[in-house]
Amino acid sequence: MKPTVGLIGLGLMGGPMGRNLLRAGFPLVVWNRTKAKADELVREGAKLAADPRGVAEQADVLITIVSDPAALEEVLFGAKDAGKSSGALDGLRRGSTLIESSTVSPELARRVAAACAERGVDFLDAPVTGGTWGAQKGELVFMIGGKAEVLERVKPVLEAVGKKFLLLGPNGAGQTVKLGMNLLLALQVDAFAEALALVTSAGVPAEKLMEVLQSSMARSGVLDVKAPMMVKGEFPASFPLRLMHKDVRLALELARDKGVTLPCGAAAYATYSSVLNASKDDPDFSAVARFWKR
Amino acid sequence: MKPTVGLIGLGLMGGPMGRNLLRAGFPLVVWNRTKAKADELVREGAKLAADPRGVAEQADVLITIVSDPAALEEVLFGAKDAGKSSGALDGLRRGSTLIESSTVSPELARRVAAACAERGVDFLDAPVTGGTWGAQKGELVFMIGGKAEVLERVKPVLEAVGKKFLLLGPNGAGQTVKLGMNLLLALQVDAFAEALALVTSAGVPAEKLMEVLQSSMARSGVLDVKAPMMVKGEFPASFPLRLMHKDVRLALELARDKGVTLPCGAAAYATYSSVLNASKDDPDFSAVARFWKR
Repeated sequence: MKPTVGLIGLGLMGGPMGRNLLRAGFPLVVWNRTKAKADELVREGAKLAADPRGVAEQADVLITIVSDPAALEEVLFGAKDAGKSSGALDGLRRGSTLIESSTVSPELARRVAAACAERGVDFLDAPVTGGTWGAQKGELVFMIGGKAEVLERVKPVLEAVGKKFLLLGPNGAGQTVKLGMNLLLALQVDAFAEALALVTSAGVPAEKLMEVLQSSMARSGVLDVKAPMMVKGEFPASFPLRLMHKDVRLALELARDKGVTLPCGAAAYATYSSVLNASKDDPDFSAVARFWKR
Repeated sequence: MKPTVGLIGLGLMGGPMGRNLLRAGFPLVVWNRTKAKADELVREGAKLAADPRGVAEQADVLITIVSDPAALEEVLFGAKDAGKSSGALDGLRRGSTLIESSTVSPELARRVAAACAERGVDFLDAPVTGGTWGAQKGELVFMIGGKAEVLERVKPVLEAVGKKFLLLGPNGAGQTVKLGMNLLLALQVDAFAEALALVTSAGVPAEKLMEVLQSSMARSGVLDVKAPMMVKGEFPASFPLRLMHKDVRLALELARDKGVTLPCGAAAYATYSSVLNASKDDPDFSAVARFWKR
């Protein structure tokens, strides 16, 4: 019999992950802060729990994928002034596994790992990459911190939603690499935006720059995926700017803790902040290009 | 009969270009500031001129590829206090063509274009990409500003040294796009160095970061070509840091002229400057990673 999977967070990533878990035949229990987002999954066979704790109580494997550290602390530790905690941690059974796929600090990941260990619960920090497209296709890449034997045990569950499961070190290592990757992506997109602003301000059309870059060492995934939208000035959210802004902040906080200076990281964070504050919509992070359009 | 080609500048790029021009059967006249660098080409059949003007006087097509704007001004305009100018411009015959392949400002390119026009000389700004490897294989990509009919006329010469000839706009457009491209490359390399410093400072080996990046949208030419050397801490010069430093400066100067701010460009320039000042060797620009090793 397949293990029961709990899923907390049904946003751009969690929603499609839930659908793929159902398709693969896993009994699924879900919870989401905005209840309406659970409706479709419930129609497709998922059970809705009353609170995060209710999900955890029924789960052999619990996956959390929420938008930021504050949301994760709330669903795991519960409202602090409540009598009986509504948090998922207090619902997890001994011998169950928590797979934490939100992007948070390595320090928070290790704090959750310690709380799990106290309860006899296995823990993996396992943030993902691949975007909404990867989530829909079930082709996410997982960056994992934790023990190999725990990963082996939950692999059948992860294989319903992902295609690569990279074990990077002990708990926290998954989050560390994810922050490094998103720092790099944020900087690559900002770098293209700066080059674009420079060249077009000097009177050369963006298309000419693109043509040259595709023939050079400057070619990149960002150039293939993000640059065409940036040239058009269209920014439908694949990975929202507000989340990338949060991830760059987490990267800068980790760097500060380790005594590392990130001059470009800091400069880009200011640029992303400026665009986030000025944007009235909820654009993709490639909307950083708007910085040069005002 | 093939046109006589003049070549001024026999460095990492110009040297192999000269060799390919000889192999393609073009009569070749050369000059270089450091005379010894001409020896091998002369043995292979090139004629050595006494000064830049001497090259220009014999050339149907003159190619200049020197290290920076100051060197270019010197070879084109000649020593200012001399009686008879030794500069190439005064040697160029009416109806000849100057192909300027150094990386300089668009403004200097247009100034040279104007000086050529006064003398009835055609002009293309045509900086290159492809590195020393591309120069050796004759597979350079040319970014060209100028007239299509001039490009058509000199294409047989360019085809001896390059494989792509992208006409990007009027004079200056080639340099504009080149500065945009090198700004982007400098930022991509710096961005990888920052992500590498972050992840390794937090205890995760560089190889783990690389493995994840190759599976993500963060994949890039820089990741393929430069990152493996940066992880090893080895920086043999393919494109020297001192030249990239100069190109980022030119990009920032162009941005200032156009009223464009480049926050990451400025931050990266400071980082490259710091490493350039501290380096006792002549490393590749990927040595910016040394910033985090001290």
